[in-house]
Amino acid sequence: MEFTLNQITQILEGELEGDGNIKVSNLAKLSEAGSSDISFFANPKYEDQVYTTNASAIIVNNDFKPKKDLKPALIKVADPYLSFTALLQQYDKMVNPLPLGVEEPSFMASDAQHGEGVYRGAFSYIGEGCVIGNNVKIYPQVYIGKGVHIGDNTVIYAGTKVYKDCKIGKDCVLHSGVVIGSDGFGFAPKDDGTYNTIPQVGNVILGDSVSIGANTVIDRATMGSTIVKNGAKLDNLIQVAHNVEVGEHTVIAAQAGVSGSSKVGDYCMVGGQVGISGHISIANKTKIAAQSGLMKNIEDQDKTFLGSPVMEIGNAMKSYSVYRKLPELQKKVREIENKLKDLI
Amino acid sequence: MEFTLNQITQILEGELEGDGNIKVSNLAKLSEAGSSDISFFANPKYEDQVYTTNASAIIVNNDFKPKKDLKPALIKVADPYLSFTALLQQYDKMVNPLPLGVEEPSFMASDAQHGEGVYRGAFSYIGEGCVIGNNVKIYPQVYIGKGVHIGDNTVIYAGTKVYKDCKIGKDCVLHSGVVIGSDGFGFAPKDDGTYNTIPQVGNVILGDSVSIGANTVIDRATMGSTIVKNGAKLDNLIQVAHNVEVGEHTVIAAQAGVSGSSKVGDYCMVGGQVGISGHISIANKTKIAAQSGLMKNIEDQDKTFLGSPVMEIGNAMKSYSVYRKLPELQKKVREIENKLKDLI
Amino acid sequence: MEFTLNQITQILEGELEGDGNIKVSNLAKLSEAGSSDISFFANPKYEDQVYTTNASAIIVNNDFKPKKDLKPALIKVADPYLSFTALLQQYDKMVNPLPLGVEEPSFMASDAQHGEGVYRGAFSYIGEGCVIGNNVKIYPQVYIGKGVHIGDNTVIYAGTKVYKDCKIGKDCVLHSGVVIGSDGFGFAPKDDGTYNTIPQVGNVILGDSVSIGANTVIDRATMGSTIVKNGAKLDNLIQVAHNVEVGEHTVIAAQAGVSGSSKVGDYCMVGGQVGISGHISIANKTKIAAQSGLMKNIEDQDKTFLGSPVMEIGNAMKSYSVYRKLPELQKKVREIENKLKDLI
Repeated sequence: MEFTLNQITQILEGELEGDGNIKVSNLAKLSEAGSSDISFFANPKYEDQVYTTNASAIIVNNDFKPKKDLKPALIKVADPYLSFTALLQQYDKMVNPLPLGVEEPSFMASDAQHGEGVYRGAFSYIGEGCVIGNNVKIYPQVYIGKGVHIGDNTVIYAGTKVYKDCKIGKDCVLHSGVVIGSDGFGFAPKDDGTYNTIPQVGNVILGDSVSIGANTVIDRATMGSTIVKNGAKLDNLIQVAHNVEVGEHTVIAAQAGVSGSSKVGDYCMVGGQVGISGHISIANKTKIAAQSGLMKNIEDQDKTFLGSPVMEIGNAMKSYSVYRKLPELQKKVREIENKLKDLI
Repeated sequence: MEFTLNQITQILEGELEGDGNIKVSNLAKLSEAGSSDISFFANPKYEDQVYTTNASAIIVNNDFKPKKDLKPALIKVADPYLSFTALLQQYDKMVNPLPLGVEEPSFMASDAQHGEGVYRGAFSYIGEGCVIGNNVKIYPQVYIGKGVHIGDNTVIYAGTKVYKDCKIGKDCVLHSGVVIGSDGFGFAPKDDGTYNTIPQVGNVILGDSVSIGANTVIDRATMGSTIVKNGAKLDNLIQVAHNVEVGEHTVIAAQAGVSGSSKVGDYCMVGGQVGISGHISIANKTKIAAQSGLMKNIEDQDKTFLGSPVMEIGNAMKSYSVYRKLPELQKKVREIENKLKDLI
Repeated sequence: MEFTLNQITQILEGELEGDGNIKVSNLAKLSEAGSSDISFFANPKYEDQVYTTNASAIIVNNDFKPKKDLKPALIKVADPYLSFTALLQQYDKMVNPLPLGVEEPSFMASDAQHGEGVYRGAFSYIGEGCVIGNNVKIYPQVYIGKGVHIGDNTVIYAGTKVYKDCKIGKDCVLHSGVVIGSDGFGFAPKDDGTYNTIPQVGNVILGDSVSIGANTVIDRATMGSTIVKNGAKLDNLIQVAHNVEVGEHTVIAAQAGVSGSSKVGDYCMVGGQVGISGHISIANKTKIAAQSGLMKNIEDQDKTFLGSPVMEIGNAMKSYSVYRKLPELQKKVREIENKLKDLI
């Protein structure tokens, strides 16, 4: 699919410097672009690439003034990265239209309902009493248990499993291998050291515009609901235990885990491989660095933590910088001891 | 489904204080209960909630004496939490009866056998020579490779994969996305730095009453068997490598990993995100705190470890408490140095 | 299936000491072997087992001289472990021939192509425009999105999902639950703290002889490709983020994670549960110990790192050895302080 620079400039409401009849067919980074590509320049660090790129056009900031001659046409906008992203979204929609209709064989219980514009891929399964909104896309081999509700425009990729009674909002994306609503890890120890299984009769509720990465697991609540609120974004291979709450617009990176009944606030950022222990509460806008272990409530908003167990990031870095030189510190103490011996 | 308090009191063999004709239809925590719910009170920390809950009835300890007036009826029992769990199990069985019969299309090799009361969901696959017990529940999109044996009453949720020749005991639960019997990570380095693949011709054996959480992986043995013994409970996203043994009634929390050929004892508790290196042996009743790294044999039973690499928990906490104040210690040493200079 | 020792000796081009008519039917470790098994002896640590094993034959080194009498026949070769592995491979091929043909129901788009010797399991899905090589084995419930290319002899186990436009080389193995080509975790923060989704329009490219463990996820690139090069071996439950490159013959152990745009060199070894942060570059032959956290470029080849954040392993172990005794060091400093007070 080809577009002229005139067309793109119009879409982006920008200003063109160069030949509006030039055609581009793809988007690429400055360093990787060829003559059929349009690129963008947002980070000053990469300005060199503006003069060496093979792209036919570059989206730049309104106030960009080239320091050298350059070949590509320029499209000037207020925020080049945002404009480029918008273009990418348009491109993606045109090149990869979402699927539509029903592929057979697929399984849908006779009393399940769904709206218009739905896709149900081959070997997908929709259980009794499900209510599926408009334009929902259910890829092949997806499993939707009994009584699940799914809001409009949600996309569920191949092989995702949603257990019974869970609720998924609208405009959500669930990637392949996601498991929603598996039993929480509930085992009560008996006197003889063996375990009683505690039934998990709650469910999982995902808000709107929630994104869940591949092979991430969100367990159902023992009673009540495990909740992921509007706009939260979870990466791949994350563990969310029973009765957890993840706040609005909170972002969690890959392989992190949140233990049972903990509450992560709104607008938090949780790094990769972080562990959060059970029954704690984390204030809004908290940031936790990768591989950290959080074991206590965080009450003040907008602080950053590091370490296992965590400290505030400034203190953690100070302790770590001494840690790196511990053998020297130890040596120094020994020298002092020896000097003292001589003195006494 | 509604029950009178008389019925519930009878089931629990308890003693009722209040109106036996009151009906409840659901179970909930004190803080979340409404007028159609029954709740329980076990942890003294939450006694306040007993006087403010909207529950119609509370299961309490035989010796509970209210400090204030309260509205809910009381059912007195020896162990409120255990009684509540038992009730939850009964409720779960009634509200969510296990599925039965065969949904089509499904695939079963002509020489595979199964007992009575089996469920085989749509798009499930059962390979040649499989032997499936009574009342086994195989949800949609499950894959059972050639020659697998599965004991009575085992439940395998949607999308779980069991490779050829594995053996699964009775009364097991395997959650969605579990992989049993994938090849162990066996690659022998060659002189040129590339790798030879070592075939993995062993299998996986799960004992009885084993529970495996969603997306957990248990690799088959190179030769012989990877073994998870009776009553062991594994949470989500756990890695169990080839030729590992997990002992009876051992509990492993989410995202932990056990490397090749290691043996975890009976009645152990392994925290979330713990790493256990290969070829080590861990005594019975060992406890390992979350995010720890264990790299040596544990020979004495019933000890608790923390850290990466681990120390006994008391020592680990002492070292960590100094670590938190390392900058102060460093400063102190510098001050001492300076004073010494003045002295000498 | 039975073989005489004469046959095996011929296959291995070895030299037999013992009765060539003895038949064996299986392979086992010395400690686990029975009278119908052949075993091997490579590691001097296990020489005791040579004299106690029940195996009928042992593959040994050419220069092995027994210190005691022994019952098993000996097959002498240049490298017993390599010979045993070769035998294991032959045995595996005979006992477990790869499947062939098409099981129904399965789904293949009308314009998808494939070569000879292909297996397509029941409930597998192959999308539009796919090109599948010769002898490719696609197990049940596998999903192959639009426009995917797969090279000859690649094996894709049950339930693996490959998103659109990805390229998989020849002689690869993808284990169950693997996800290839899910969207990279790309969300651009807006001024109000919510997020814009950045479309991920790139793909994933796997080279030849790549092995991917169960439930591992490899995200597609934002633009361009996420690349895993020839001969790389990835274990289970690993996270490979968008635009990452994994070098040739690099080995990554279970539950490790590589963040966006990082480049891991050739012939590297990455331990279990390691975290590698984004936008860094790691020299060839780097080794990273389990649970480490790598946050900076590694420029010199062939070094080993440990810790979170990492240090070179020698330094890391020195710091850690002082860490273990931090309370003593603190005590010593206090004693010195007190002595100094007395002096001044």
